[in-house]
Amino acid sequence: MKKFINNVDDVLTESLTGFGLAHSDILKIHLNPNFIIRADKSKEGKVSLISGGGSGHEPLHGGFVGYGMLDAACPGQVFTSPTPDQMISASQAVDNGGGTLFIVKNYSGDLMNFEMASEMLGIENMTVLVNDDVAVEDSSFTTGRRGVAGTMIVEKIVGSAAEAGISLAECKELGDHVNKMTASMGVAFTSCTVPAAGKPTFEIAPDEMEIGVGIHGEPGRKREKTKSADEITRDLVDTILEDLKPDNNAEVLLHVNGFGGTPLMELYLLFNSAAKELEKNKVKISRSLVGNYTTSLEMAGASITLCKLDDKILHHWDSPVHTAALRWGM
Amino acid sequence: MKKFINNVDDVLTESLTGFGLAHSDILKIHLNPNFIIRADKSKEGKVSLISGGGSGHEPLHGGFVGYGMLDAACPGQVFTSPTPDQMISASQAVDNGGGTLFIVKNYSGDLMNFEMASEMLGIENMTVLVNDDVAVEDSSFTTGRRGVAGTMIVEKIVGSAAEAGISLAECKELGDHVNKMTASMGVAFTSCTVPAAGKPTFEIAPDEMEIGVGIHGEPGRKREKTKSADEITRDLVDTILEDLKPDNNAEVLLHVNGFGGTPLMELYLLFNSAAKELEKNKVKISRSLVGNYTTSLEMAGASITLCKLDDKILHHWDSPVHTAALRWGM
Repeated sequence: MKKFINNVDDVLTESLTGFGLAHSDILKIHLNPNFIIRADKSKEGKVSLISGGGSGHEPLHGGFVGYGMLDAACPGQVFTSPTPDQMISASQAVDNGGGTLFIVKNYSGDLMNFEMASEMLGIENMTVLVNDDVAVEDSSFTTGRRGVAGTMIVEKIVGSAAEAGISLAECKELGDHVNKMTASMGVAFTSCTVPAAGKPTFEIAPDEMEIGVGIHGEPGRKREKTKSADEITRDLVDTILEDLKPDNNAEVLLHVNGFGGTPLMELYLLFNSAAKELEKNKVKISRSLVGNYTTSLEMAGASITLCKLDDKILHHWDSPVHTAALRWGM
Repeated sequence: MKKFINNVDDVLTESLTGFGLAHSDILKIHLNPNFIIRADKSKEGKVSLISGGGSGHEPLHGGFVGYGMLDAACPGQVFTSPTPDQMISASQAVDNGGGTLFIVKNYSGDLMNFEMASEMLGIENMTVLVNDDVAVEDSSFTTGRRGVAGTMIVEKIVGSAAEAGISLAECKELGDHVNKMTASMGVAFTSCTVPAAGKPTFEIAPDEMEIGVGIHGEPGRKREKTKSADEITRDLVDTILEDLKPDNNAEVLLHVNGFGGTPLMELYLLFNSAAKELEKNKVKISRSLVGNYTTSLEMAGASITLCKLDDKILHHWDSPVHTAALRWGM
């Protein structure tokens, strides 16, 4: 295993410490329990948005802590759910009196621990469960669909709305709405290696790919011989469109997300393939995002996410945001 | 070779097309000859900044075209110098009457072609040659030191100053100054695969790393057994400090750059290692940048860049920028 690490047990702590040092203008790191909170003080009465999950998907979620997005993120060990004490401590640290919204990717461990935190919290609390992955219905760590790259879109939209002062119930409703408007699917060329495991999560032949892979390397829909970018994209986009059923000339946000080991050059080539496929299907790309946002350590591969845009989602997507990984308008 | 491509010959064209579609608010793509220009109109009399080089280092340089940075970028084929017709056409397309500054990484092919363009241009022109890589003096494609991740810092600083209206001669002087204040060194765990070659650029054992690697996989200072992140970082940072010789308590920009295949988690861990080493050497980190900015396709590895800050560099680093890969203040 070739990685920039010192000791396997210290990977998360040292990485979080570096993250905090590099972005001290935006966020603060708390260790034991581990959580990341905004450095700026939110308005009194603002709903606090908290997400979290296993590490190894960076910049998700810590990279989205800051003005206009998350108030806190709770990182678990690599590909391991965070624990309720992290969520409770984070919630208390960012409580503005407006209640707390948990944004949770649908994995059994994450869901259970966020639910436990919710019961023990003593602060008004609701949860948005994100399940945008259309690849498989149930999966290794999931009952129902998995939450993947669409989670970041939910965080951006609800983060903007919370900043504008909407209530906890309205945040919950908006988050559920964005989740329904969003669908994703991914493909992997290689596995990734969890530091504590020291070997690749799964084996894959030099001429094979995993269509519909999960962000922890979980199996997808099928193992196939590698194909051209256009053919792969058609498979992903068509499956997403079957789920979202956009109207003719519907406007979408197209997000091409790298899993960590695929060059940006290829991600833009995929964007081009997806644009051709969407044009053929009379879907209009109004906003776009290309890069490594929801990763699986160094996995080579990518996912495509579409979010159907309405006036509200568009407004909150375009609004100012100031986080380590997403920044515009300020 | 597992890559998101259709035909090897179309990789650059399709990737550039996708890049243009994804960022039509910021930039425009011209094909045959290939160049990328700002979508917004610059002020009359503004010096035009143009860079370029082989593709495969994305987001460098196209990702830095836009307000406050480059006016144009000329992408060659993967790891291949762009040709003079690209630079001439790009220069003509972004000519504001203030002259043209070429920002060129020190590789023999790039330098020769930019020099040829300069002679044929018919627009007042100067060149800043960037050679921040302290690993080796001469190299596979270089007489003198290579230009690597520090190039982006030169582009940011001079881009801001040009936006503020300084003259061509002042842009050239500032660019040379930033280059002198900046030093970099990298390390690779794996090779990368140029699409047209179809196989890894170099072989490396599962327990070896290349210290001082170039961004095309060129040999560095030494091939060694892998070591801890702290040990690797010490090697890189100490070599950089020997070159830059910062005063006690000097303030620096610390840039940890990923080569494309290393997870963000590890890059932040490296940042933490570098911060410890700088503290020991009484150097103060005043600004930081962590991520994949000057890549080598999917190479696993990273480089560390330090730029000594003075008031002028600090001012122009902090000033607003609006490009595909770097955006703040607007």
